[in-house]
Amino acid sequence: MQKSKIIFKDNFKEISLDAQLSFLIYDKDLLKYSSEFKTWQKKYKFQYAVQAGEKLKSLSNFESHVNHILSLSQGMNTRKMQFVVIGGGSVGDFGGFIASIFKRGVGLVHIPSTWLAAIDSAHGGKTALNVRSAKNQIGTFYVSQKIFIIKSLLDAQPIERASEACGEMIKIALIDGGSWTKKLAQETDVREVFKRFLKPAIAAKYTIVDQDPFEKSGIRQTLNLGHTWGHVVESSHALPHGTAVLAGLQFCLRWSFYLKILKLSELQRAESFFNLLTLPEIKNLSRSDAVKFLRQDKKKSNGNKLSFIFLKSVGQPIQLKVSVDEILIEAKRQGWLKL
Amino acid sequence: MQKSKIIFKDNFKEISLDAQLSFLIYDKDLLKYSSEFKTWQKKYKFQYAVQAGEKLKSLSNFESHVNHILSLSQGMNTRKMQFVVIGGGSVGDFGGFIASIFKRGVGLVHIPSTWLAAIDSAHGGKTALNVRSAKNQIGTFYVSQKIFIIKSLLDAQPIERASEACGEMIKIALIDGGSWTKKLAQETDVREVFKRFLKPAIAAKYTIVDQDPFEKSGIRQTLNLGHTWGHVVESSHALPHGTAVLAGLQFCLRWSFYLKILKLSELQRAESFFNLLTLPEIKNLSRSDAVKFLRQDKKKSNGNKLSFIFLKSVGQPIQLKVSVDEILIEAKRQGWLKL
Repeated sequence: MQKSKIIFKDNFKEISLDAQLSFLIYDKDLLKYSSEFKTWQKKYKFQYAVQAGEKLKSLSNFESHVNHILSLSQGMNTRKMQFVVIGGGSVGDFGGFIASIFKRGVGLVHIPSTWLAAIDSAHGGKTALNVRSAKNQIGTFYVSQKIFIIKSLLDAQPIERASEACGEMIKIALIDGGSWTKKLAQETDVREVFKRFLKPAIAAKYTIVDQDPFEKSGIRQTLNLGHTWGHVVESSHALPHGTAVLAGLQFCLRWSFYLKILKLSELQRAESFFNLLTLPEIKNLSRSDAVKFLRQDKKKSNGNKLSFIFLKSVGQPIQLKVSVDEILIEAKRQGWLKL
Repeated sequence: MQKSKIIFKDNFKEISLDAQLSFLIYDKDLLKYSSEFKTWQKKYKFQYAVQAGEKLKSLSNFESHVNHILSLSQGMNTRKMQFVVIGGGSVGDFGGFIASIFKRGVGLVHIPSTWLAAIDSAHGGKTALNVRSAKNQIGTFYVSQKIFIIKSLLDAQPIERASEACGEMIKIALIDGGSWTKKLAQETDVREVFKRFLKPAIAAKYTIVDQDPFEKSGIRQTLNLGHTWGHVVESSHALPHGTAVLAGLQFCLRWSFYLKILKLSELQRAESFFNLLTLPEIKNLSRSDAVKFLRQDKKKSNGNKLSFIFLKSVGQPIQLKVSVDEILIEAKRQGWLKL
């Protein structure tokens, strides 16, 4: 698998792409909150503005998007063109998928506009669409040639986006456990987290992805830490992805400790990462919703069992097969479900 | 790129696949014309019968197909499953595309049921869907693990299918020019063509594909010999693909000769391949249709120019940029267009 080149820039002015060969797909809200982007995008005549969110990823709307993009890209050299995808997770998943199948695959550049995308979804080549209510059922592994991380674009986000993105940051810290994570555990200001730890967190993600780019050996699946339960509460309570992952990590740590996979001292070490945040509190999940969302989980390894990532110690995730029932019993024990 | 394993078998009975992990996608007409297949498929509980044809490849119908397949594959281990795609070109393009994006890519086995698929489309990993009337606008390069070539299945086809498939056979002969092609030029019975020349023709295709699996260097594009004009008459006159390629090859040979790219002796050598066939005669193509279908050609290299494969000699295709206008002038000269 080819590798993405990650390029850190202070602002959009430093980025100049071939306007004949670049087709921008971007979150249209960026025009509102980044005047710098608004000026920059005017140089590009081939472009398509989208509304970010899960609806963008729906297969139901896909034909209409493809039609628009085919028509707007008339006259481009499709042998050499590249899609430049500027936005958060949903825009990246959608734009990456388009690039991977348009004329059997063209160039791809990611410019993540959220901390969550900058730390996680822009890296590693996963693209996806949803099929009805089931998330990420179709997609590709398609690595971008370049990823631009633009400081001014990311700094323009409201502080809530950083809090949400801490879910993925802490997840990577729990999986990696490198020396940078000790400093992260002492951090108390969410604003500082991404300034200080974005680079080592991205590097930690690539350490895992590079060992298992197509998620075949099981190594890459450890990045699903916190995601099985996270996806349930994300769907049931319409939580932002990063916030849902925070909830999923809590679920995982408590279960790992309860099963004596995780020692008390390591649980405490793991929990120190959460000091800088207020965690979501969920106590009213319906059992039938939980069953439905668990069954849709794409990481389901067969009809009855799911692959669940537990934590043995900070830096040591392990994967075990569990049944939907076992997850529900644990969810009840932890107090997530409606009585 | 991984390589497909090509396995020649006499009949379906010799093929036994893991029924828990295999999901069949097949042309439903096979149940009618191959009793052997009808018996064989009963062993597989995960299956989806489709109506072959261009409609199957329409993006408009894609969501409905994906929904069915998701629902029919409930309970399968999606980490290890494989789609087994049994049919001709449209079924292979559709099934291959599904396999390439389902859960970000699962296993794929092709069992071509037509000579055209057995010699051409089942090999080399191209998958595709159509977007409205524009063919193959989206797709992937996704190589199957295995391709079973089953003698009894292919022999069950009507003779017309073999005549149609001769278009791709002759195309490969013109590009390859190896010693087997001398024998092909002497063949007078269409029924014998595939028995005698399927293996060397497949080998010749892989010689080209392996040098340029993702169609980046230009080498693989030589396999488009006869296809630029072929696609026009395929769309305008609803011809079978292989028959349209025959027409496209005629167009290409006459133009190559007219431009003095091809010598008279080589033209005569090339034309000897066509002795065993009746060629389609088209004289009433409307200019506006020709323009429309040429503009949609996915091999368009930019707004004005197309990449067109000419023949310098048998075994020596060359690629040149031509304009839509130049093609139209030549089409008029050759007498294809309405007066």
